Amino acid sequence: MEKTLREIAALVDGNILGESEIKFTGATSIEQANLTDITFAVEPHLQEAEGCNAGAVIIPKHVTVFAKPAIQVENPRVAFTKLLELFTPPLKIKREVHSTVIVRDNVKIGKNVAIMPYVVIDDDAVIEDNAVLYPYVYVGQGARVGESSTIYPNVTIREFCEVGKRDIIHSGAVIGSDGFGFVTQNGTHNKVPQVGNVVLEDDVEIGANVGIDRATTGSTRVKRGTKVDNLVHLGHNVQIGEGGLIVAQTGIAGSTKVGHHVTFAGQCGCVGHIEIGDNCTFAARTAPINNVPSGSFYAGFPARPHKEWLRVQASLHKAPNMMKKMRELEKRLAELEKNK
Amino acid sequence: MEKTLREIAALVDGNILGESEIKFTGATSIEQANLTDITFAVEPHLQEAEGCNAGAVIIPKHVTVFAKPAIQVENPRVAFTKLLELFTPPLKIKREVHSTVIVRDNVKIGKNVAIMPYVVIDDDAVIEDNAVLYPYVYVGQGARVGESSTIYPNVTIREFCEVGKRDIIHSGAVIGSDGFGFVTQNGTHNKVPQVGNVVLEDDVEIGANVGIDRATTGSTRVKRGTKVDNLVHLGHNVQIGEGGLIVAQTGIAGSTKVGHHVTFAGQCGCVGHIEIGDNCTFAARTAPINNVPSGSFYAGFPARPHKEWLRVQASLHKAPNMMKKMRELEKRLAELEKNK
Amino acid sequence: MEKTLREIAALVDGNILGESEIKFTGATSIEQANLTDITFAVEPHLQEAEGCNAGAVIIPKHVTVFAKPAIQVENPRVAFTKLLELFTPPLKIKREVHSTVIVRDNVKIGKNVAIMPYVVIDDDAVIEDNAVLYPYVYVGQGARVGESSTIYPNVTIREFCEVGKRDIIHSGAVIGSDGFGFVTQNGTHNKVPQVGNVVLEDDVEIGANVGIDRATTGSTRVKRGTKVDNLVHLGHNVQIGEGGLIVAQTGIAGSTKVGHHVTFAGQCGCVGHIEIGDNCTFAARTAPINNVPSGSFYAGFPARPHKEWLRVQASLHKAPNMMKKMRELEKRLAELEKNK
Repeated sequence: MEKTLREIAALVDGNILGESEIKFTGATSIEQANLTDITFAVEPHLQEAEGCNAGAVIIPKHVTVFAKPAIQVENPRVAFTKLLELFTPPLKIKREVHSTVIVRDNVKIGKNVAIMPYVVIDDDAVIEDNAVLYPYVYVGQGARVGESSTIYPNVTIREFCEVGKRDIIHSGAVIGSDGFGFVTQNGTHNKVPQVGNVVLEDDVEIGANVGIDRATTGSTRVKRGTKVDNLVHLGHNVQIGEGGLIVAQTGIAGSTKVGHHVTFAGQCGCVGHIEIGDNCTFAARTAPINNVPSGSFYAGFPARPHKEWLRVQASLHKAPNMMKKMRELEKRLAELEKNK
Repeated sequence: MEKTLREIAALVDGNILGESEIKFTGATSIEQANLTDITFAVEPHLQEAEGCNAGAVIIPKHVTVFAKPAIQVENPRVAFTKLLELFTPPLKIKREVHSTVIVRDNVKIGKNVAIMPYVVIDDDAVIEDNAVLYPYVYVGQGARVGESSTIYPNVTIREFCEVGKRDIIHSGAVIGSDGFGFVTQNGTHNKVPQVGNVVLEDDVEIGANVGIDRATTGSTRVKRGTKVDNLVHLGHNVQIGEGGLIVAQTGIAGSTKVGHHVTFAGQCGCVGHIEIGDNCTFAARTAPINNVPSGSFYAGFPARPHKEWLRVQASLHKAPNMMKKMRELEKRLAELEKNK
Repeated sequence: MEKTLREIAALVDGNILGESEIKFTGATSIEQANLTDITFAVEPHLQEAEGCNAGAVIIPKHVTVFAKPAIQVENPRVAFTKLLELFTPPLKIKREVHSTVIVRDNVKIGKNVAIMPYVVIDDDAVIEDNAVLYPYVYVGQGARVGESSTIYPNVTIREFCEVGKRDIIHSGAVIGSDGFGFVTQNGTHNKVPQVGNVVLEDDVEIGANVGIDRATTGSTRVKRGTKVDNLVHLGHNVQIGEGGLIVAQTGIAGSTKVGHHVTFAGQCGCVGHIEIGDNCTFAARTAPINNVPSGSFYAGFPARPHKEWLRVQASLHKAPNMMKKMRELEKRLAELEKNK
């Protein structure tokens, strides 16, 4: 595929600085770009981009002078995303139900699906139009995979769980494993049946090797547009609001309710049975142990407001010196007391 | 399925308060319950339950007045567990070895098993009576799956590993991956063969995407009745005692021995080659780095007694103020010294 | 298999102390060894080994008197590794492409491979000589598995990813899941296509249920001889140098570059877009948030030099007492001020 800067500018609704007929065959990062690649740059990388090997650079509108051919756009990241799609040849996905797919009783399969070798679709399950299921995907009894969703290899979707439209589930993820619920009597942990399900709403993405437990009763739910990174654990009956970002290796314990547009950076933890308001941000490794009001920016374990955490961190560094200082003060004080 | 309160009371060995002929079709939580559902409540949720939509509530024996039809029982949680089983229709599990199952040489398969499509059972493996193996379960050479155990999709049981009776292994779990053992010479990490196995004793449950490494020699072992949550890592030669609870994302490094009835809450870590006594509890994110005596309740990293951890946490909050205070004391002291 | 001490000594290039014709059938740990087993010991386990049940012990060269038959060698661990190989019968691996393997278009498969039931090899993929692929391994379009590599069950290798020679990938690992990259506009997270790949160089080992994300553009790369333990997360465009050890449950965020011979102990975390020099060691649970110079030994979160971390930890323990002390000093000071 070859595109001129003019064609690219039209695609991203941008304004050309410099020669418009130069040709491109790829889009990549500043570091990797060659003369036939286009890249993008925002502050503070603009200068680096001027000196790189790319043939042209997508830059913010307000930058009017640039040392290379460039395209000015509203949002360089968004424009670049379009170019990654443009220059990447699509995978060959056969729209078929492969002959080795096992379809049990009373299953409904929509139009234009791609169901690859060795998929197993259990009784009463539903696969909607345009869904793509890679090898070794198991769709349990009564489960549903929504329209245009992509389920990568080795994903398990347990019975009665629901995957929304345009969802993406990465390899190894488990949707609907039993919640960790036991009634302990005389030291024996008796299993509480986990008879609820998991509901992933539309436009949700679930990372590799994530585990999302089914509810004891009712649903564990990840709401519309939320993206979950690799190796995250969501306990039974957890609710995650819309538009969230749950970064890698975070764990959220059972029955916790998280509001809309909440970001948990990597390796966060969250105790069970609490409520997190809307628009909260948790720095990496933060672990809230109580309800958190909307709009909070928290850090640390136990989680506290980020500014407070910074202040505590700063004083920790100084703790060894404080101790020395205190011993010194005590000596001086004793001296005074002696001479009193 | 429809049951009267009278029938339900008989099942859970309880005493009815109110009308006994009302009918129920489900059991669910206080929040989700409708008029045809029965729920349960213990302190501090009794008042909330009195105001909910459920048709009846299972309550502790000592509660003698209740605003709704109720059943008094010894242990409401245990009774409720029975009702979840009662009202949940069982999955349709075909007791058969599916025609696509690959059974290699010298395999023994018991009676009444359900071995689903695309399972592979390698040479010399044993599958005991009533076992249920979901699709894409791999049972390695010489491995064993005990009586009445359930192995969910995409589980790997490597060679010579042993799964006990009535065990449950959730999707994506790996039983018997190689331990992380290397001998480093001149910067090259040479693999130490991991020739031991993993033994899961009876009544063990293993969560989704857990990794349990095989022993270098001998066995990595999870003893009777222990429950392991999602995404837990157990290193080679780890021993976990009976009746333990290992909550999500905990990691226990190689050769550590954990006693009976030990609870690790979520995201704990444990260094290798230490011993944890019986009846210990570790709060979330605790990480012991030395032996821990029986009966301990620990928190923090490095782990220390929970009370001590609380005291340290409290003083951390005050550290910034302490520094201010100390500067003030120093000033006052200097003032006194001047006037001496 | 039965070997005399003399035969064993020849194999490990060692010197016999005591009777050379005694026979052995196994090699195992000090604890597990019986009379027909050989074990090994280094300081501080030599005395324990003298009292154990093993028939003989492999010991360091400098130990010249030993209470049991022994073999003196340069490096007892290395010698023992050879014996584990000697006494462990190899698995029966059929060198064949099983009849159920799905080979899509234009795939190249080398000589002497073992491709087990239900493997799926997608268009344009390459499997080199002597590779071993266990059941339910998916090799994506254009992906490559190098010579003599072993891929355990339920591993996913996504499109265009490259696995080197003599690599080992444990069950459940995911190579090449999409990086966690979104452009957020008005609260909607739009997916950035992840069009790069993952490259695992030669002699790399990847643990169970690891997730390694493909690069946005270019490659996420694990260099020669690096070993990655269970449940590790490597974000998109991460670079790990040669000869590294990444212990269980560590997570390294996107675009971070790690030098050669770096060890991350268990449950470490690393923010994105930083550089870690060569020969660094991070204690368990360490989380660097800035560049780290070569040769560092760091601990804590945020990571700092290990010695400094120890000092801070020590003073934390004393913080509650410090507060008490400070109140006492204040009182004494007030007393002096009154009497001034």
